[in-house]
Amino acid sequence: MTGIEQQARACRSAATVVAGLDAGQRTALLQAMAAALERHAGQILAANARDLAAARAKDVGSAMLDRLALDPPRLFAMAEALREVAGLPDPVGQVTRDEVRPNGIRVQKVRVPLGVIAMIYEARPNVTAEAAALCLKAGNGVILRGGSEAIHSNTAIAAALGSALREQGIPEAAVTVLTDLRREAMLELLQLHELIDLAIPRGGEGLIRFVAEHARVPVIKHYKGVCHLFVDASADVAQAVDLLVDGKCSRPSACNSLETVLVHRDIADVFLPLAGKALTERGVQLRADVASEALLPGSVAATEDDYAAEFLDLVIAVKVVDDVDAAIGHIRRFTSDHTEVIATRDAAHAERFITALRSAVVMVNASSRFSDGGQLGLGSEIGISTTRLHAYGPMGLESLTVERFVVRGEGQVRA
Amino acid sequence: MTGIEQQARACRSAATVVAGLDAGQRTALLQAMAAALERHAGQILAANARDLAAARAKDVGSAMLDRLALDPPRLFAMAEALREVAGLPDPVGQVTRDEVRPNGIRVQKVRVPLGVIAMIYEARPNVTAEAAALCLKAGNGVILRGGSEAIHSNTAIAAALGSALREQGIPEAAVTVLTDLRREAMLELLQLHELIDLAIPRGGEGLIRFVAEHARVPVIKHYKGVCHLFVDASADVAQAVDLLVDGKCSRPSACNSLETVLVHRDIADVFLPLAGKALTERGVQLRADVASEALLPGSVAATEDDYAAEFLDLVIAVKVVDDVDAAIGHIRRFTSDHTEVIATRDAAHAERFITALRSAVVMVNASSRFSDGGQLGLGSEIGISTTRLHAYGPMGLESLTVERFVVRGEGQVRA
Repeated sequence: MTGIEQQARACRSAATVVAGLDAGQRTALLQAMAAALERHAGQILAANARDLAAARAKDVGSAMLDRLALDPPRLFAMAEALREVAGLPDPVGQVTRDEVRPNGIRVQKVRVPLGVIAMIYEARPNVTAEAAALCLKAGNGVILRGGSEAIHSNTAIAAALGSALREQGIPEAAVTVLTDLRREAMLELLQLHELIDLAIPRGGEGLIRFVAEHARVPVIKHYKGVCHLFVDASADVAQAVDLLVDGKCSRPSACNSLETVLVHRDIADVFLPLAGKALTERGVQLRADVASEALLPGSVAATEDDYAAEFLDLVIAVKVVDDVDAAIGHIRRFTSDHTEVIATRDAAHAERFITALRSAVVMVNASSRFSDGGQLGLGSEIGISTTRLHAYGPMGLESLTVERFVVRGEGQVRA
Repeated sequence: MTGIEQQARACRSAATVVAGLDAGQRTALLQAMAAALERHAGQILAANARDLAAARAKDVGSAMLDRLALDPPRLFAMAEALREVAGLPDPVGQVTRDEVRPNGIRVQKVRVPLGVIAMIYEARPNVTAEAAALCLKAGNGVILRGGSEAIHSNTAIAAALGSALREQGIPEAAVTVLTDLRREAMLELLQLHELIDLAIPRGGEGLIRFVAEHARVPVIKHYKGVCHLFVDASADVAQAVDLLVDGKCSRPSACNSLETVLVHRDIADVFLPLAGKALTERGVQLRADVASEALLPGSVAATEDDYAAEFLDLVIAVKVVDDVDAAIGHIRRFTSDHTEVIATRDAAHAERFITALRSAVVMVNASSRFSDGGQLGLGSEIGISTTRLHAYGPMGLESLTVERFVVRGEGQVRA
């Protein structure tokens, strides 16, 4: 047995212990994990300093450095996030169906943990703590395979979480942070379908495609977010401008930011000059089609590729369309199945947009930036799924469980 | 583009049309499909006669011939099954969560179709009609890849269903019955992750393993059912004998039949002689451990392999255990995650059994043979999942949908 398989086996066995805890014990465990992060603050920050020094020596960009960096406020926020997860409603044991059949047997559907989750992600060390907390809260074990840039931070965080697990009498393997970060080791991990119930890759499209292409374990993922806003002829113009500015500018690097705005021909003359002004004031580059170019001073011509792009930056593609059906047609062609928004005061158009599009999140008169587990009321988010199976859209604690059947009878037989 | 990919693309496009139908239109479609089966009875039975003649010439077993054979009553039962599916509650559009967030946005989770389902199965031609009906009822397209033994029957059923689709103005590709049954064609189908949302293999373990090992599309499956009955010391003996006889004898070839009975040491003297008599009277062969052998006249010694076996026949493995924990330990070791039953009058033991075991279906004082979509109240069953993701246990219409988010606001933004 290889090291990776051994670690996965140990995690699976520890997961059985976690699944056997009651809700109060799991809450106490997460609180102990939060306290352990604070207690180990010195070691974690020192380890993070080593990662940062190595990253600087490799001359990585400032965005990467920022995602990697921990400081005392970020560390305490990480501990606080764990306490928030601890306080969320426990999904395990929830009864989602309860029916007495004509023959008197009582059939319930009850949430149980999935088992072992493998998280595969890139530089952010806070994912290590938060993903561990979410998986344990839902009664699972977790295998965390972070990026090499964060190896010292992740190892120090694992040590802190491990001390909390020991304190609570739970095998440390329930949270397994891998330190063998070779590709071959990841490939091996992704073959262990008898030991791992679900892999969730998070990060750049390259990493996610690698995981999806090589896994024999089930994978839930999203590659990217090419989110659209369609401004209907009946839209409240000021509101639509707000939705556009918020959707594009409040955090351009997020997957729920807007990448394309589609504008109904009948409102383009009014909407586009206002929208263009608001966006360019905020430094947004506009890539416009022929019909919108003249209404958008400073815009450049959009190429076909621009409508497929996730810019992750202050750039947006603009297109004028004939009607709601043309908007739907464009979105169907370019959608990443993530999030689409319509700004409209026409209820029939709103319903048509909702029904015709099959993206994970469809919104009427609300910012695409609400497409987030916390904002949608899930409490916290383990990832976003554009895989149309098990979960679709932001995934919270419930998505880390599955419903099984519990049947109680009084000796009923079938024959 | 190959033929298989072309067919999958056509099915995907047709699935969009099916998803756009309202509940009434989908019901009408299924009723038209039932009528078409009856109208095409002559052609279907003639085609089935060709399959049967070929099967007889190949000297397949009588069990296979029976699964393959259609006659007028079976054909009309098939049509009736479609009418029953037509009458089931429509899962599409069901709202499973509805919450107004503090900022006023209304967040709903709503069931939508999965998209395109690929069914891969063996000889039974009735699966062709019923799986098609279930997939369409839930708003999906379906690709059906049946066994070569049933090729003429399946083609004739497809022609009947196709005429109903045409009648209702829906592209026939919504129900695509593959006629290229080469392994390479199946392999190609299983790679089409952009076109197929879920593959459900049904049949022998060999077929299912082949699909699971080669698929790049998500697969939901169960390999086999090694279902256990544990007779606790506190069990009602007569009731436990009934559960055992029903579980083993009412349909030994079904995956929800019992394969092993575990008996608490304290009740073995009373239970086993009665159980042994009831089973041997029905022709069941008993494979007993050392402790039960003397109490079971005519039994043979069980090997380790017998406890892992799915006999699919009138054979059962027997073992005496010390207590409920020993029963749980044995089941954890040999479980296929399908169905486990406890016969007990001790509520604490029942709860311990339910909690400690993670199988898809756990039952207290009820026959394992109720582990079936129809019996559990799902209306009908597309398959059984022991994959701990998306669905776990018998799968009905709901399992052919996924929940997505619909958000309605009044211009709310996040920043």
